[in-house]
Amino acid sequence: MLVLYYTPQTCALASHICLEEAGAEYRAERIDFAKEEQRAPAYLAVNPKGRVPALVTPSGVLTETPAILAYIAQVYPAARLAPVDDPFAFAAVQAFNSYLCSTLHVAHAHRMRGHRWADDAPAIAAMRHKVPETVAAGFDYVERHVFVGPYVMGDAYTIADPYLFTLARWMEGDGVDPAKFPKVAAHRAMMQERPAVKAALAVQLGG
Amino acid sequence: MLVLYYTPQTCALASHICLEEAGAEYRAERIDFAKEEQRAPAYLAVNPKGRVPALVTPSGVLTETPAILAYIAQVYPAARLAPVDDPFAFAAVQAFNSYLCSTLHVAHAHRMRGHRWADDAPAIAAMRHKVPETVAAGFDYVERHVFVGPYVMGDAYTIADPYLFTLARWMEGDGVDPAKFPKVAAHRAMMQERPAVKAALAVQLGG
Repeated sequence: MLVLYYTPQTCALASHICLEEAGAEYRAERIDFAKEEQRAPAYLAVNPKGRVPALVTPSGVLTETPAILAYIAQVYPAARLAPVDDPFAFAAVQAFNSYLCSTLHVAHAHRMRGHRWADDAPAIAAMRHKVPETVAAGFDYVERHVFVGPYVMGDAYTIADPYLFTLARWMEGDGVDPAKFPKVAAHRAMMQERPAVKAALAVQLGG
Repeated sequence: MLVLYYTPQTCALASHICLEEAGAEYRAERIDFAKEEQRAPAYLAVNPKGRVPALVTPSGVLTETPAILAYIAQVYPAARLAPVDDPFAFAAVQAFNSYLCSTLHVAHAHRMRGHRWADDAPAIAAMRHKVPETVAAGFDYVERHVFVGPYVMGDAYTIADPYLFTLARWMEGDGVDPAKFPKVAAHRAMMQERPAVKAALAVQLGG
């Protein structure tokens, strides 16, 4: 059985939704950042990075959202979560997810986790100040250059969808107006109604 | 034929090396950042992000290093650049490459590209100041928790190797002492001798 380590309000939601979409047998284990559980020896033995998500598989532990999502898509091909037999189409999905993790999520992280990249308070405040602009630029790229509709890659739901949904939930907190990104906003509303999304959110947030 | 858009001294080197390792038919097109060619309409039509690398394939354009590397590995299976038939092993390679792009490369980028995340000069200087610490932390994670040897994933060369090599070339510039990371440093020295690496560097840097 798979075990997903997650913390509510983190990008681990994308992997959680994907496990639900796949119909996977898994257990979800909460890591409480307020109790610093991500730095406890028990969790560092699972993921030395001290971050979530981490997915324990029969072959070992996987980290990093794009890799976990691709793994789930490949191990549960019947769920058709990615075009795994088409190298270009699969890479296009990976390119999108890689952009989310290395650019859009990183832009967002400068709001609450500026201490990763600078030590002094004014610099951390300066980073926080620019987050609405940088996060909006990321969604603008998605809206204008990638999103096909109704799903990210077009007619087929893929592992790009739960990941975009996860980051799009943070728009308001990042000072970004969803009304400026109508395709992303409509996608977020549509995703919210999927049973897999409701199931994952119910576990993570209670419901 | 594939076309790789690259700029010297960027992460595009990883894709360039990988095309050489694969024995791919490709053309390498230089984008000159000094002339702002990455923001010229001709290049934005290829990659609206205005970044390198971009790989033009018969099916369309791919961006983002982890996706380009996975694509090359899948399209040239005879080169055995990734364990594409083993979902866990393939995902482990992707997890490593995802870490490089979203954490290690991002740490490095705070040295020269702090303006992405803050506008004022003191904040940009504060980010630059922390780069030796954050980049070293990234290599420490690689050295202690991931690197198997002699290649990143063990006995087999994979798409993780040219990517690590590319970022490891920036250590000294980032104020990180390679002697503190002996496995990564030995890997860098070994990679430097590969014909594919020499060929890509000769094109990018002259030789």
